[in-house]
Amino acid sequence: MRALVFDGKQPALRPNHPDPQPADGEVLIRPLRMGICATDVEICRGYMGFTGVLGHEFVGTVEKLGKGADKKLLGKRVVGNINCVCGKCDMCRGGLPEHCRERTVLGIAGRDGCFADLFCLPARNLIEVPDTLDDDRAVFTEPVAAAYQILRQLTIEGRPFVTVLGDGRLGLICAQVLSQLNATVRCVGKHTDKLALCEKWKVKHRLLSDVGLRADQDIVIDCTGRAEGLAIAMKMVRPRGKIVLKTTIAPHHQSPDNALDLSPLVINEIQVIGSRCGPMAEALWALAGDKLDVVSLISRRMKLADGAEALRLCAGATGSQGVIKVLLEP
Amino acid sequence: MRALVFDGKQPALRPNHPDPQPADGEVLIRPLRMGICATDVEICRGYMGFTGVLGHEFVGTVEKLGKGADKKLLGKRVVGNINCVCGKCDMCRGGLPEHCRERTVLGIAGRDGCFADLFCLPARNLIEVPDTLDDDRAVFTEPVAAAYQILRQLTIEGRPFVTVLGDGRLGLICAQVLSQLNATVRCVGKHTDKLALCEKWKVKHRLLSDVGLRADQDIVIDCTGRAEGLAIAMKMVRPRGKIVLKTTIAPHHQSPDNALDLSPLVINEIQVIGSRCGPMAEALWALAGDKLDVVSLISRRMKLADGAEALRLCAGATGSQGVIKVLLEP
Repeated sequence: MRALVFDGKQPALRPNHPDPQPADGEVLIRPLRMGICATDVEICRGYMGFTGVLGHEFVGTVEKLGKGADKKLLGKRVVGNINCVCGKCDMCRGGLPEHCRERTVLGIAGRDGCFADLFCLPARNLIEVPDTLDDDRAVFTEPVAAAYQILRQLTIEGRPFVTVLGDGRLGLICAQVLSQLNATVRCVGKHTDKLALCEKWKVKHRLLSDVGLRADQDIVIDCTGRAEGLAIAMKMVRPRGKIVLKTTIAPHHQSPDNALDLSPLVINEIQVIGSRCGPMAEALWALAGDKLDVVSLISRRMKLADGAEALRLCAGATGSQGVIKVLLEP
Repeated sequence: MRALVFDGKQPALRPNHPDPQPADGEVLIRPLRMGICATDVEICRGYMGFTGVLGHEFVGTVEKLGKGADKKLLGKRVVGNINCVCGKCDMCRGGLPEHCRERTVLGIAGRDGCFADLFCLPARNLIEVPDTLDDDRAVFTEPVAAAYQILRQLTIEGRPFVTVLGDGRLGLICAQVLSQLNATVRCVGKHTDKLALCEKWKVKHRLLSDVGLRADQDIVIDCTGRAEGLAIAMKMVRPRGKIVLKTTIAPHHQSPDNALDLSPLVINEIQVIGSRCGPMAEALWALAGDKLDVVSLISRRMKLADGAEALRLCAGATGSQGVIKVLLEP
């Protein structure tokens, strides 16, 4: 089969990659649509030290069952939790399976990803996609879940001021999800064209250059995907406020000349909350119920065969070329 | 009067510094005992960009009243809150006066400190010291309050595993204070001689080199006062655990070659809680009630006249020379 593989140096399509075989309890999935995420770009810069088939955002069809996998899944259109867990460690037993000590993560850690003709996931990770939800929207389930995770980690009281920092893929999704709260939410970014989507969604938005860094926000969500995101967030959030950190970047990608000064965290008694994957079922429910607009985020559709070029396009998309989400099709 | 002044380059005793005059609502205090804190050392490395008279830990006698200051304070032995606030800004009005937007901080920001023959503080900042509490212990009120602040910021449930990281001045106080909780508390440091005090207090303790970094602690308190403290804490705390950050350091003192990788915060969904000054009255109550042993922390007593040397001694005390707390006497 074809697979987009990162070998530690650069991503490239391998036309004759061996077909994966579903292990016990796993299924073989043929992706219908795949999404490129900032994490994929960072992996190609060394994040997580991952090598193998890239990709973790997908909607696909179950094509083959491994031993013991639920037979009802065969032929179904599914999305899936990307964390594959042991079920036995202290985290799994303690109710935090997404933090399993032995986990593999699709296309991120110890497990080949979905940018291929076929890939495997445990059957228990999958959720069937309702017929009313098309592929273009279903492929956003994973990043939308990451946004919904924030709602599980924050307690909203007294109509707080919330800034979503970053107008990229994740920032624009978070801005929509957080706008459902009893809060005054604004999205702050660097790109007029991307922020224009907020106008469409009736979400407040401002250019970073027009915003005073006045330490007056109750909550700041860092979706910048950049090392300087936290530094800006620390200047925006009020004393005793909260910063939700969504940015994961390859360490060498940080600016070594400008070491991050974390003393504002102590002086202003700021709380930083790391936030990763979220509830897939809730995200699927939100997408199926048209609670948010993800279709407007689709900037380009490219073929899996052009995946390496697609990744380069996303990597360069920090300017204002207007590239938000790139989808891959088989 | 004499005053230990940091001019932006180095600390030095000035024998003929002008006597301070208490403003309206302030009092003039003659310190009886002063404590050197890691923050003083960092200020001499550029932290906070402060210049002026150093020092913020003291017990002293009220010698003169400014206009409107409570007359009952005259001649009393006092300790005091080091944050001098406006009472008018959004933080003061919002119940967070310690985060006043216009505050000055004794010997740290915009206000001369207590390493002098005389200094000023607002009368409302002061708490009278009970006769049963001697100077040697009363001078610890400010750092003990900083430790008690942690109890205000954490909710302790289900007998968690807590590591106090750092066996310096603040770490050893935090270890004692946290041991009062329904938690399994250990102090982890690098100095056998300092950790020996934990043995005396029946607080669990381990050398850092003997501790596995197994991401199994529910809560880690970073009292290392070093940039690498947070990196170690991130390896010690469990997924979804909490790190209380007490370390404030001058940015240039961080290692620029080894930029801190914050991605574990996101991947493991760790919560970081910055923590600064705490409740002085509670600390005074704890000291007066012999709830903790601070006298054992006193390594040296030196004269104010030798203050610059005392600061150098504390700055070099990151080895195992056994210097924990240095007190200054007039």
